[in-house]
Amino acid sequence: MEKKITVLPGDGIGPEVIASAVRVLQVIGKRFNHTFHLGYAAIGGAAIDQFNNPLPNETIQMCEQSDAILLGAVGGPKWDNNPTHLRPEKGLLQIRKHFDLFANLRPVKAFPSLLASSPLKREVAENVDLMIVRELTGGIYFGEPRKKTAQAAVDTCVYSREEIERIVDNAFELARLRRGKLCSVDKANVLDTSRLWREVVEEKKKSYPDVQVEHNLVDSVAMKLITNPGHYDVVVTENMFGDILSDEASVITGSLGVLPSASIRGDNFGLYEPVHGSAPEIAGQGIANPAATILSVAMMLQYSFGLKEEAAEIERAVSAVFDDGYFTADLAQDGTRVLSTDEWTDKVINE
Amino acid sequence: MEKKITVLPGDGIGPEVIASAVRVLQVIGKRFNHTFHLGYAAIGGAAIDQFNNPLPNETIQMCEQSDAILLGAVGGPKWDNNPTHLRPEKGLLQIRKHFDLFANLRPVKAFPSLLASSPLKREVAENVDLMIVRELTGGIYFGEPRKKTAQAAVDTCVYSREEIERIVDNAFELARLRRGKLCSVDKANVLDTSRLWREVVEEKKKSYPDVQVEHNLVDSVAMKLITNPGHYDVVVTENMFGDILSDEASVITGSLGVLPSASIRGDNFGLYEPVHGSAPEIAGQGIANPAATILSVAMMLQYSFGLKEEAAEIERAVSAVFDDGYFTADLAQDGTRVLSTDEWTDKVINE
Ligand SMILES: CC(C)[C@H](C(=O)O)[C@@H](O)C(=O)O
Ligand SMILES: CC(C)[C@H](C(=O)O)[C@@H](O)C(=O)O
Repeated sequence: MEKKITVLPGDGIGPEVIASAVRVLQVIGKRFNHTFHLGYAAIGGAAIDQFNNPLPNETIQMCEQSDAILLGAVGGPKWDNNPTHLRPEKGLLQIRKHFDLFANLRPVKAFPSLLASSPLKREVAENVDLMIVRELTGGIYFGEPRKKTAQAAVDTCVYSREEIERIVDNAFELARLRRGKLCSVDKANVLDTSRLWREVVEEKKKSYPDVQVEHNLVDSVAMKLITNPGHYDVVVTENMFGDILSDEASVITGSLGVLPSASIRGDNFGLYEPVHGSAPEIAGQGIANPAATILSVAMMLQYSFGLKEEAAEIERAVSAVFDDGYFTADLAQDGTRVLSTDEWTDKVINE
Repeated sequence: MEKKITVLPGDGIGPEVIASAVRVLQVIGKRFNHTFHLGYAAIGGAAIDQFNNPLPNETIQMCEQSDAILLGAVGGPKWDNNPTHLRPEKGLLQIRKHFDLFANLRPVKAFPSLLASSPLKREVAENVDLMIVRELTGGIYFGEPRKKTAQAAVDTCVYSREEIERIVDNAFELARLRRGKLCSVDKANVLDTSRLWREVVEEKKKSYPDVQVEHNLVDSVAMKLITNPGHYDVVVTENMFGDILSDEASVITGSLGVLPSASIRGDNFGLYEPVHGSAPEIAGQGIANPAATILSVAMMLQYSFGLKEEAAEIERAVSAVFDDGYFTADLAQDGTRVLSTDEWTDKVINE
């Protein structure tokens, strides 16, 4: 197989974790006889510094000629006081919108050897294996009008039926491939967009009789994700709720540093990135945890290229390195060995 | 002291927990020589059944002539398919709006003897003592336009500078009386309303040089509330974020069943209610946990009537009963004694 991938290292620890993930990708390529052509481009703060634009045209064009995008992370204090259109996050929002990447998939799965780092009791966190499906290109993030004066401000949450239908379909398909359970999250007791959301889920469920559906209010899910995270299989929700709940869910298993994500659309194209941020405070020290980015490569292999065996191989290797007691500094526990980003990546490659 | 209180038992376990709280209130009144005049009125599902209106005029009038309102809980499956204006929650939203109760205070404090019921590790939860201040009468809950057709729906989040100023002032005052730390939560990297929010907090902080302020994004707070809840003192945020984060925070300490809340405005008037819902599945069995409603009475004594000693007395009694190992069924642990709602209330009164 031959594939083109655009690599966007971004800011902070982005370039470091990307370097690790690319090494793993190349090893997998060699081993399974695939050729991955990589092109590098700028996004976020790095792109602002170089091109005065968080998502330069050159970057968009290279992505358009690729089969998938691998992203590190964007943002940092350096650009925090910039006007909106010159902020690193804007690059991220624009790339999602430009490529219509409407489905953000965020799996959260417990690694037994990381549970000691979880804020939750072992018995609460140990069987967690859920997937949050967040709508990524609609809702209050993109709705018009939006406006701010010194006296007042307004944001608008809009959803069309089609926007809801496609993400809900996506979530049903995923539930079907997993344990067949779908929790749809809304605030239908207050919001009109949530009432439409619930209506669409009710209609769609007729087409997926094999999936068991529940509706739950966002405030209640914010509780149950912590008291009983093992309850969930696939959780589908709108953009803003998904932002909050997926970050909340990311702490269950003990480290944000190991969670990958995929942002996809109807075809096989997609953008893959770790859930964690650019962590400017530890950038350049060679101590960042590359696991989430490496696992994002696994998601790319699976969702964009259909390479299930290769993806499983990476997941197995990462898990094995944890089980052997090797961690980067963020996961250090008593009696474990702390490795640098590169050393830890070597262990994964050896596996 | 002589005070008028309107009591709104509401639905599900509402009447049961209210009965307990009223008994405690009367005992405190006798002991400290205050007279509390109670008037009962209907709200929520009970009011829909009786008056076809979740917030009848009679109820509003009685509340208007009172010094404070004590509420049980509203809602239940019976009314779940009603049109919006005939849903129990509508009564709650209307009473907040009618009385301009813009500040929702939700304290979360660990009771050492309940930590075994917490999903969090003891060392994470044990020192938690935070207060979420949620804006309660603005934002996307009330903004216009809101609209739903079969093809699309829209909700609007609006905030005026004044709406933000008054809640932020409120939070600063509270922080000053506590540990002097304020965390303001927004999504200023995406939303215009959040940018105005942040601007107002930045301005206001000049008037409270004794309070240490931080700004944090809602997704990041959703994580840190679980990984490091002890970090927080006062947390202030807008309506929708407050709904989600305060419910999330409510699970930290081991039980929703013990958390009170106050909804107040500029003067001494306020509405006090437990954080938990109407729990229709256990209604009528006499096993509900009245602690949250009893502690809501304590908040009423403190915030509406300025009776600090009386409030502290109730808090002490509740804590002592837990320490003696008496719990209602929801908190049952190995080796503890499980009491009914009434028996548990007797223990508090004896203390
Ligand atoms: C950076 C920000 C705009 C972004 C979002 O809220 O979508 C981030 O928090 C995420 O979840 O990917
Ligand atoms: C019942 C509902 C409208 C309400 C809200 O979201 O405000 C409730 O969840 C709360 O937090 O008091």
